[in-house]
Amino acid sequence: MALIASPEQLLETLLQMPPARAMQLTVGTYGDERLTLNAPLAPNVNDKGCAFGGSLSSVLTLSAWSLASLKLGEAGLAAEVYVQDSTVRYLAPLFSDLQATAWLEPEQDWAGFVETLRTRGRARARLLAEVTLPEGGVACSFEGRFVAKRG
Amino acid sequence: MALIASPEQLLETLLQMPPARAMQLTVGTYGDERLTLNAPLAPNVNDKGCAFGGSLSSVLTLSAWSLASLKLGEAGLAAEVYVQDSTVRYLAPLFSDLQATAWLEPEQDWAGFVETLRTRGRARARLLAEVTLPEGGVACSFEGRFVAKRG
Repeated sequence: MALIASPEQLLETLLQMPPARAMQLTVGTYGDERLTLNAPLAPNVNDKGCAFGGSLSSVLTLSAWSLASLKLGEAGLAAEVYVQDSTVRYLAPLFSDLQATAWLEPEQDWAGFVETLRTRGRARARLLAEVTLPEGGVACSFEGRFVAKRG
Repeated sequence: MALIASPEQLLETLLQMPPARAMQLTVGTYGDERLTLNAPLAPNVNDKGCAFGGSLSSVLTLSAWSLASLKLGEAGLAAEVYVQDSTVRYLAPLFSDLQATAWLEPEQDWAGFVETLRTRGRARARLLAEVTLPEGGVACSFEGRFVAKRG
């Protein structure tokens, strides 16, 4: 398993997945403990002309997975990161490009996650994410539990 | 909005969505109040060689959306069907083709859903779905709330 230690390595890993290529996923901003993934609307549109629920769910899940993977990679830890379960709320239709931003649930911290993985070989984290509307407000919100296992 | 009154019309609608085409989605069995959608593994694989979480979530969501749309179409009702929220549990990695089967939550019935939509112009339904493992057991389970609105 490869170490994902930079946004460039992250994008390379993401684009190894055919569905991420089909979505035309790119890595947006990363900083201030948040990571954003972008995808254009055209390859991710549904029968109603707005963003497909499956693409919204995918970009949300991947934004959270990406942030967790990057945090471990920056700490020098090679690990497999899996989503265990997730809940998505579809709040408003999105008629523009998809932009999903993920962050760690406020009660947790990355240092603890990294330390648990380092000492126990396994760690869990709960992440939140959302896709915002260009006019303000939230199109879609996500919460998911992830598990990391050392290689 | 088009009436989806047969599995053939369903497939036509699904394949109007670029993400469903990218997933190479097909309609499987439909009967006994259950509907199955299929997708091959190759275009839906992740960096670990198993089914991508986003594709699993998409095929599950679409199997439920498809069943609700078909039930309304068979009743002669043109409606938009939306997913409101959903929870997916990823239970075991899937190293083969994706097959998602959806059904209505047992406490509800389709006649009531159709009647509510007909009289009030809006109806809600909770659907369940799962992707099974070829060796038996469940790879991934889904529950989602859907809303239908008359055109």
